[in-house]
Amino acid sequence: MHFTSEQRLDDGVLAREFTLGEIPGTLWTPGSAESAAPAPLILMAHNNGLPKSDARLAARARHSVGRGYAVASIDAAGCGDRPRSAADEQTRADLRRALRADEPVDEIFESLVGPLVEKAAPEWRTTLDALLPLPGIGGPVGYSGWTALGIRLAATEPRISAAGFFAGGYVPHAQREEARQVTVPLLLLLQWDDGGNPRQRALDLFDAFGTKEKTLHANMGGHTGTPWFEGEDAGRFFDRHLK
Amino acid sequence: MHFTSEQRLDDGVLAREFTLGEIPGTLWTPGSAESAAPAPLILMAHNNGLPKSDARLAARARHSVGRGYAVASIDAAGCGDRPRSAADEQTRADLRRALRADEPVDEIFESLVGPLVEKAAPEWRTTLDALLPLPGIGGPVGYSGWTALGIRLAATEPRISAAGFFAGGYVPHAQREEARQVTVPLLLLLQWDDGGNPRQRALDLFDAFGTKEKTLHANMGGHTGTPWFEGEDAGRFFDRHLK
Repeated sequence: MHFTSEQRLDDGVLAREFTLGEIPGTLWTPGSAESAAPAPLILMAHNNGLPKSDARLAARARHSVGRGYAVASIDAAGCGDRPRSAADEQTRADLRRALRADEPVDEIFESLVGPLVEKAAPEWRTTLDALLPLPGIGGPVGYSGWTALGIRLAATEPRISAAGFFAGGYVPHAQREEARQVTVPLLLLLQWDDGGNPRQRALDLFDAFGTKEKTLHANMGGHTGTPWFEGEDAGRFFDRHLK
Repeated sequence: MHFTSEQRLDDGVLAREFTLGEIPGTLWTPGSAESAAPAPLILMAHNNGLPKSDARLAARARHSVGRGYAVASIDAAGCGDRPRSAADEQTRADLRRALRADEPVDEIFESLVGPLVEKAAPEWRTTLDALLPLPGIGGPVGYSGWTALGIRLAATEPRISAAGFFAGGYVPHAQREEARQVTVPLLLLLQWDDGGNPRQRALDLFDAFGTKEKTLHANMGGHTGTPWFEGEDAGRFFDRHLK
């Protein structure tokens, strides 16, 4: 793991870019990571491979650091700015066309997101291996964001102690099945009128999770309309389980 | 309005019993109600006419007082320890029998809860009239608890600024319709496996509310299994809208 740059943000957060083999990542930590007491780590992933540099993800990361967490995100294979195969590019083009034409997108989503999760999960685990020994970072570990990837990680990675998922209207078949194996405390946050995430499927997914300690939060509006106070609620959820 | 007794509880809360004509009520206030700055008022009602003296309701009231609210509850006509008509007694007996026999209870609930709301709502408004001029009590006013009564009050009483509803699986026809007229901020809290409150109906009710500022919280388990942190979440909901 090599840190390639670091930046002190105006809220005092230290943002460091790193590479781990082919994996580019960002680590956000409170103040001086070397001198502070170890902070619990939150792995934060953006839906369906959006880049780790996205402004909304970065804002969520800094908010969590303000609550005393270390936060890490990566661009896994095929995600963010990583190279995409010609087949991936074609699938994304097909998806855009189908969405514009208001055609069914289930099969396209499956062929796009299914392989994305398969390739991303091992890279997130490799990243977790590399992050936990760093000074200033301790356990336990939380996961926040992209539902499909989070299900795979929470179902297969015993170091993850709590997970906050967003949306969940579209999740590949494999992760629909794996949801039953998720036994850690869970917060599922959904937008009631999220066009890309059919409400009933998100409710069915909530029902399917194997954990008894699961909470659903829903608010009005579309995908990007989550009210500010849900950030605070998610922070308190992690506080209950990671601190 | 006559105060008939007062008690200083071990958490410093002042609990005063009052009567207002035939209506018996309890008012919980922080410390000395006369000297403190006016506290926003929360009207707190228990589902389907359970008594205001119920331990769970009293605990919720004291929790809210601890957050700086004045809280009032009454036994409205036909509720709590108030006399019941022979017809009401018969309906309640029919309901118990139908529940034991696992028979449909919709019509019985309708004939029990429909009239209960019709009679209770004016008494709650009379109580609000009497409470607001008291020293130590100010606006704005919140409502917490019994969903059917709360819909009627929130739809018809402009002094109510925010409402927290619980369960909502069974609500009389009239209040299902009135839900569209509720335009104040709203928190609906439901238990995912609440036997007496079918989940899909509670979700349909959430969908029906007229307000754009509505949030749904759901947790696992039965009617009385609400986790402790939902009390804190409800407190913060009222803080956002009443303070």
